Amino acid sequence: MKVHQGPLLYEGKAKRIFQTDHPEQVVLEFKDDATAFNALKHSILQGKGVLNCQISAHIFECLEKNNVSTHYLGLAGNNSMVGQKIDVIPLEIVIRNIATGSLCKQTPIVSEKELDPPLLDIYYKDDNLGDPLLTEARLKLLGLITDRQREEIEEIARKVNSILLEFFQTIDLTLVDFKLEMGFNNSGKILVADEISPDTCRLWDQRLNDPEKRILDKDRFRKNLGGVVEGYEEILKRIQGASGKPSNAVSDC
Amino acid sequence: MKVHQGPLLYEGKAKRIFQTDHPEQVVLEFKDDATAFNALKHSILQGKGVLNCQISAHIFECLEKNNVSTHYLGLAGNNSMVGQKIDVIPLEIVIRNIATGSLCKQTPIVSEKELDPPLLDIYYKDDNLGDPLLTEARLKLLGLITDRQREEIEEIARKVNSILLEFFQTIDLTLVDFKLEMGFNNSGKILVADEISPDTCRLWDQRLNDPEKRILDKDRFRKNLGGVVEGYEEILKRIQGASGKPSNAVSDC
Repeated sequence: MKVHQGPLLYEGKAKRIFQTDHPEQVVLEFKDDATAFNALKHSILQGKGVLNCQISAHIFECLEKNNVSTHYLGLAGNNSMVGQKIDVIPLEIVIRNIATGSLCKQTPIVSEKELDPPLLDIYYKDDNLGDPLLTEARLKLLGLITDRQREEIEEIARKVNSILLEFFQTIDLTLVDFKLEMGFNNSGKILVADEISPDTCRLWDQRLNDPEKRILDKDRFRKNLGGVVEGYEEILKRIQGASGKPSNAVSDC
Repeated sequence: MKVHQGPLLYEGKAKRIFQTDHPEQVVLEFKDDATAFNALKHSILQGKGVLNCQISAHIFECLEKNNVSTHYLGLAGNNSMVGQKIDVIPLEIVIRNIATGSLCKQTPIVSEKELDPPLLDIYYKDDNLGDPLLTEARLKLLGLITDRQREEIEEIARKVNSILLEFFQTIDLTLVDFKLEMGFNNSGKILVADEISPDTCRLWDQRLNDPEKRILDKDRFRKNLGGVVEGYEEILKRIQGASGKPSNAVSDC
């Protein structure tokens, strides 16, 4: 997709957002920076930006084909995509299908417990506050979104989970959990935004049983397991393989 | 109330629980230990046990007169009371009328903001996990109580708040926030348990404007303000003065 990349609007930990000559479009450039633990841990992983951009693009296309509205408009380059300009909702929506990570540090729920129904957690996106977990009442008190919008956000997140669980299943990957960010476009519609990549999803390789080897996502970085980029490459390879197959349970993914 | 104090059943940070010769009754002895920040800070404050016991006794009596069921049966000594034996529900129910403390560290809600309706937070009582905040979904997942019991617990907590807000108002104290613990008695009824004291309530003196001097509760200890016991004494003095008055908006408190 051809686009004129204008001045930098915002730089985050993993992406830069640039203006374009279209008032409602931005370019998202994926960086090679890897961060964890609220940026206490930081590395440059050559190639990660391209991988996350390509994986996110595939996933956004898959969601759009399944009637989930996203900010994604098309690729702009290997490590950049064009997105609708949005008002970011400063919340992180996390859906967990299997218990692991912070959930097991914060509650007595044991690691690898299957969560049925999937657990939906909403966090307030603020690095200075350490992205705190919000109860429904605290979310209401913050007044960022209406009750109706919260319901819509949760509905979208659960729909994304159903689609992606099924899609990853077809390529022998288990979607353990993932984070979504959303925003309002200029007509007030809620769109899935940011990225959906191994930086924001936990994905386990069903072809491997070893609890460390099967990890293909950012936990390889968090836990110093090495082979981070190789894990991401494996995910992209399987996604690209899947898109060649004629019939998928998930339509057109 | 006469009771035979038997062997120690349990020792917590602020209380010891003893068996009695009645199978459904225990003695709660209030210690002089002051702890804060998950017991990282600890002191002995001579007289605190007696004060918290006497204040709690008054408050439990006030709640009982207003048809809130508590574990309280009567005083056993200056620093001990007789309570119904309960199955403790490992939750801490916190009601906040004014924002302060951890809420303002964890969210962008500014200190001293009036919370209307009062904010109700439920924490999982577990020192090893740091008493984590629970969302409704996480509480459900833990499976400690049913939805109906959660509703009942919240109803009780809000009723306690209404009664105590009004009661403390009559003695020129602002109930900023407080923590409740509850449990099931042997017939499965939910009772307000533990203690309700300046260790578990934030109380501000309306006769003083100074933001530090007006604090009469455990925040004097947390913030190293000194005069902790004196603050607790002032609360007890006012409660005892109030109980002499013939007419109160809150019946019989």
